[in-house]
Amino acid sequence: MYPLTAQKPSVATLFLSAPEMVRLIQRKGLQQCLGGIADALRADFLRWPEFDKSARVANHSADGVIELMPISDHALYSFKYVNGHPKNTRAGLSTVMAFGVLADVQTGTPLLLSELTLTTALRTAATSALAARALARPDSRVMALIGNGAQSEFQALAFQHLLGIEEVRLFDVDPAATAKLMHNLQGTGLKLVPCASTAAAVRGADIVTTVTADKTNATILSGDMIEPGMHINGVGGDCPGKTELHRDVLTRGRVFVEYAPQSRVEGDIQQMPADFPVTELWQVLAGQQPGRLSADEVTVFDSVGFALEDYSALRFMHDAARELHMGEMIALIPQLDDPKNLFGALRTAVSPLRRAA
Amino acid sequence: MYPLTAQKPSVATLFLSAPEMVRLIQRKGLQQCLGGIADALRADFLRWPEFDKSARVANHSADGVIELMPISDHALYSFKYVNGHPKNTRAGLSTVMAFGVLADVQTGTPLLLSELTLTTALRTAATSALAARALARPDSRVMALIGNGAQSEFQALAFQHLLGIEEVRLFDVDPAATAKLMHNLQGTGLKLVPCASTAAAVRGADIVTTVTADKTNATILSGDMIEPGMHINGVGGDCPGKTELHRDVLTRGRVFVEYAPQSRVEGDIQQMPADFPVTELWQVLAGQQPGRLSADEVTVFDSVGFALEDYSALRFMHDAARELHMGEMIALIPQLDDPKNLFGALRTAVSPLRRAA
Repeated sequence: MYPLTAQKPSVATLFLSAPEMVRLIQRKGLQQCLGGIADALRADFLRWPEFDKSARVANHSADGVIELMPISDHALYSFKYVNGHPKNTRAGLSTVMAFGVLADVQTGTPLLLSELTLTTALRTAATSALAARALARPDSRVMALIGNGAQSEFQALAFQHLLGIEEVRLFDVDPAATAKLMHNLQGTGLKLVPCASTAAAVRGADIVTTVTADKTNATILSGDMIEPGMHINGVGGDCPGKTELHRDVLTRGRVFVEYAPQSRVEGDIQQMPADFPVTELWQVLAGQQPGRLSADEVTVFDSVGFALEDYSALRFMHDAARELHMGEMIALIPQLDDPKNLFGALRTAVSPLRRAA
Repeated sequence: MYPLTAQKPSVATLFLSAPEMVRLIQRKGLQQCLGGIADALRADFLRWPEFDKSARVANHSADGVIELMPISDHALYSFKYVNGHPKNTRAGLSTVMAFGVLADVQTGTPLLLSELTLTTALRTAATSALAARALARPDSRVMALIGNGAQSEFQALAFQHLLGIEEVRLFDVDPAATAKLMHNLQGTGLKLVPCASTAAAVRGADIVTTVTADKTNATILSGDMIEPGMHINGVGGDCPGKTELHRDVLTRGRVFVEYAPQSRVEGDIQQMPADFPVTELWQVLAGQQPGRLSADEVTVFDSVGFALEDYSALRFMHDAARELHMGEMIALIPQLDDPKNLFGALRTAVSPLRRAA
């Protein structure tokens, strides 16, 4: 790696690679990361009006989508690059890969470049748990987990650590996915119960989390499966043409979303009329709208993933990396002696002796 | 840097840092880079309808703007991150800093992460020259260059190499900027003539390039300065509230833009009514619309910078880096043994011995 000059102000960017992020999560502890991200999320959701928000920018192709998710407040800007290619696993690749940047709003300098594949799984699970703390019954102990793929273990652990879930009832159309989850979560203290069908997993559960990957308008949950008092955490219906909940589920109780303009296009509520009533999560966290109203109410969190969640997660990871002195500095931006002399960077390289002169 | 596994398919990303880009431009030669990027630009502009295009996404703040510029065709996706902070130079930072990514549309895998601060200067100059080849008089030999800041040397050299410009007449409100340019372009064979005012520099020029940095609605060129047969290359009026050309200049001849929906918001034509007639450059290159009609016609290229130009430049730099075996591989994305087992990446780190078992 090129040695950065000691000159100020530095435009070097802290880089957290995927392997370094694994080590960071190891050193902090997964539970502490989930809790820390949930705290950062809550703090940022509470100052929702301060953010310059927009729906993500998507480039669709035959096999998938690549999206950019920018957001900023007065101090920090972030964006995430993330793809969604359901057929990728056949080729040995992940369905979802992501990375992102945190930048200084006052100067535009990129402060942190980070992997976000692992971090997205953590922040999605932390967001689900944060919403469930406001929307699920406080005595919830049993969660059904429909879809046991790449995101599922993170959901299970976030609900264990942040909500006190003790039992997770599992179903996936692929039994190997369920077996992988059970293997991965050995020794966590969670009671893991494989079930023969979605209906069997859902029956009697306090919370139902759906996190399936197929890019289709699927009916993972139908209205007849829903019991009074359930909280539905719908995570997998997150882009146009990709839904998980039958519309009867959406009319059974109040529906909560992250950012309505994006969710109406991408969420399970894409099936509903444009004026279908929804409440934004931040309004509940800020006390502007009520969360759960009674023990019998059905609540639905129709989650699609919003840029603010990546902002909060990047902020948490940036702090953690600095605290632990992790990551490395990279030169995304040229370090110029004179910022008005960009061309000089090329001349310097021609005649290295000029630099020392 | 973490050693990447030899496993296939690899999700490693080629990284071209700013210092490595300096070395790459050195090894290829600046003239060859400008010509190669212009060739890539021309080839990509000719297949304009194949691209999924959108205006850039901008987050504005008190001191500047941070933008994302995505674009894709059936094979490749690219985006650029770029800021614009005119006050940055007071703090020793560049006004414009940029980096970007080239990705595989079929899988979403990021193939190349590259600095784009230097590369943007090259691609902007190459785009200006490409447009001028279609719009300026073929016998153009004298260019006025108004604004002698970070982009100016690249403009001068692109017009020398790609159009045969022999004399550049210089003006900047800051004489130090002009002195810097003259120092940087010593020995290039260009005749460099410092002038006392914009009007003096423009008088008798075949081509007038404006590339000033102030974020204001300025009048760098007024209608009385424009002579028959001139080609105006307006580069610095490139975001809302930032213009360089008096509206009388825009009505003196035909106006050409990169991508009309973006230019009507960001370009000098933001001063004009929404139906002000413009021609997109690709239409001229493709022979669908005429370029210059006569030796006396005034032509105006109102350039703001479009995502396709970064796509072309990233494609050129990716090919150059592979040809010269430059750059290094980095792990933006986790390399998973089983793509459905993201959580396994964390477990592996817990118990390294499990990997060997």
